[in-house]
Amino acid sequence: MHFFSSNFKLGILGGGQLGKMLLYETRKWDIQTKVLDASNEAPCKIACNEFVLGSLLDFDTVYNFGKDVDVLTIEIENVNVDALEKLEQEGVKVYPPTKTLRTIQNKATQKLFYTDNDIPTSPFTRFAYTSEIEDSISNGGLQFPFVWKSAQFGYDGQGVKVVRKIEDLKGLPNLECIAEEMVDFKNELAVIVVRSTNGEVRTYPVVEMEFHPEANQVEYVICPARIEDSIAQKAVAVALKVSEHLEHIGLLAVELFQTKDNQILVNEVAPRPHNSGHCSIEASYTNQFEQHIRAILGLPLGKTNSKVAGVMVNLVGAEGHTGAVSYQNIDSILQMEGVTPHIYGKKQTRPFRKMGHVTIVDEDMNRARKVAQQVKETIKVISS
Amino acid sequence: MHFFSSNFKLGILGGGQLGKMLLYETRKWDIQTKVLDASNEAPCKIACNEFVLGSLLDFDTVYNFGKDVDVLTIEIENVNVDALEKLEQEGVKVYPPTKTLRTIQNKATQKLFYTDNDIPTSPFTRFAYTSEIEDSISNGGLQFPFVWKSAQFGYDGQGVKVVRKIEDLKGLPNLECIAEEMVDFKNELAVIVVRSTNGEVRTYPVVEMEFHPEANQVEYVICPARIEDSIAQKAVAVALKVSEHLEHIGLLAVELFQTKDNQILVNEVAPRPHNSGHCSIEASYTNQFEQHIRAILGLPLGKTNSKVAGVMVNLVGAEGHTGAVSYQNIDSILQMEGVTPHIYGKKQTRPFRKMGHVTIVDEDMNRARKVAQQVKETIKVISS
Repeated sequence: MHFFSSNFKLGILGGGQLGKMLLYETRKWDIQTKVLDASNEAPCKIACNEFVLGSLLDFDTVYNFGKDVDVLTIEIENVNVDALEKLEQEGVKVYPPTKTLRTIQNKATQKLFYTDNDIPTSPFTRFAYTSEIEDSISNGGLQFPFVWKSAQFGYDGQGVKVVRKIEDLKGLPNLECIAEEMVDFKNELAVIVVRSTNGEVRTYPVVEMEFHPEANQVEYVICPARIEDSIAQKAVAVALKVSEHLEHIGLLAVELFQTKDNQILVNEVAPRPHNSGHCSIEASYTNQFEQHIRAILGLPLGKTNSKVAGVMVNLVGAEGHTGAVSYQNIDSILQMEGVTPHIYGKKQTRPFRKMGHVTIVDEDMNRARKVAQQVKETIKVISS
Repeated sequence: MHFFSSNFKLGILGGGQLGKMLLYETRKWDIQTKVLDASNEAPCKIACNEFVLGSLLDFDTVYNFGKDVDVLTIEIENVNVDALEKLEQEGVKVYPPTKTLRTIQNKATQKLFYTDNDIPTSPFTRFAYTSEIEDSISNGGLQFPFVWKSAQFGYDGQGVKVVRKIEDLKGLPNLECIAEEMVDFKNELAVIVVRSTNGEVRTYPVVEMEFHPEANQVEYVICPARIEDSIAQKAVAVALKVSEHLEHIGLLAVELFQTKDNQILVNEVAPRPHNSGHCSIEASYTNQFEQHIRAILGLPLGKTNSKVAGVMVNLVGAEGHTGAVSYQNIDSILQMEGVTPHIYGKKQTRPFRKMGHVTIVDEDMNRARKVAQQVKETIKVISS
């Protein structure tokens, strides 16, 4: 059935801000949508044709939600995959496929997938329980420092910790996890690959995360990355290899490290629209959301080139501010050329909460980067 | 009150496809919206925060709708201006202002406004009733051919007719009207001017309507127009003069004729987002809908330059097709580079009904224009 048929229905698991941006595109093409989210204040509650309130992790909820849709996609990976598998068996088109989701959902499985397929990634050890790590250290199987990661999603935002000494292990939950060697990287890059139901594959230009020199936090996403062509080609080749072996459908954001000796290592992937692709809304011929829709509906893929250079700044809650949100100086940034704020619509701010993003586009990357810095120095997400 | 306050409410009169595109922008900035439309199937019914079903022409309906909004705007001119005036007097910010709307709503008043302000426009005569025209012809006051136009909006889509002989007057409704001299034009152009509550004014690049060589129908809107700089400057100057005297707030689309001897004449204006500005979604730094919102909320205006060249093709129902709509070969046009279809979501097609539009963007105008022709020759809006 064609997407513009009024009987066609696209299901989206998750009603957050990525879903909201997907809905701009479904509306542009008049695609009927149904969204599941656990929050009655989900940004997708309006703009979809049908909103269902319920848990993304509950088998029955997801299964019942998906039964009457033609194509089912996600805006967040942390969903009940068993229910998706049953739907898939019953003929619902689930993209990304559950096989892809299962590989990605468990970080140990994801890392094993890379090594099994000769995809470069940092060395790691899997542990059935965090408590096993201490033994491994004492018998010399593991050295400090390393990155501890919970294997399962959904562990309340605290799934990653840098461990430099034995005391750092204290307080970590005792569950399946991995210990990853720390990567001494020069750049953090990302490549978005799109793969459609009919096998067509395209990649977006490599983007670069620019870190704050002291705070070690990503400050800017730069599109295209300011790297040598040979490095960009290597990054794209690795991303394509991940894509090919994962057999995903739709977008796949591949996060990469460029090491000091110019190796490209896969950090992790997300099989959906991604923060690293937000610049595409203003900078690309085809934005990542439209592209995802094209891919999962089996339509020809769109041009992934950029019209102009883009820089993205995340809008996060300022430290020391918790409560009803206010966007200080938003008028001032609107005065800067080529600046587009995206406000996600969360009513409450708290320190570091992701409240929106701002894209800066310009013909000239240096100018875009300068304006991005002005944006960052000007706008502040505070409590009013 | 700032627009991102959850107590702020933007009212929109009209819930059609222009409103729908406005709502992408209100959602991007999390602006609370309330929409009035007479149809329960209005495209804006979803994606606004509050939808009210009712007539745009009924005083009480419009007045009651507008009482609790902070800013009230329109996506169609044909609304009850008396109700808007009362709301304006009571402190609601109505943009465009009712004064502007009154001047525009009556085509005789609009034409008088041009002549009163020394704005070039084609010669015309106003008649209180169509029946008076015959007298004027017989006493030599009016020559064939001329364009008959109903002064009032809302006369069921049949408000314009070319009159070449006395018989052509038959069947025309007997109401206030104008008879306009036919303009022998070389080009039909349009300039979108934006004017904000704080007086800031910007113009978009001049666009050109390219006509079918035989059918005398607009086939393509070309941005920027392929005209000499001196003509473009003249067109912009005339548009700015109209804008200044109309004292509108928000967008103003000024439709112009370039005569064979390179005069610029104003045809008519629309004080809202307009078909001639649709290319701005894909081609401009700031699309016309975001720009309208910036203007009416008193925010700094965005950059009106283009990132790339753009061509727009209207999608209208094919002749001989009435019924449930189907977009034949839409997949084929999605395969062409830089092509974005916009489907308005009307369920029924009929000959010449506006069902959507397609934008083609490219660095190179000639290439965009070629692809536009392929698009036009490929997609067909039919009944399924």
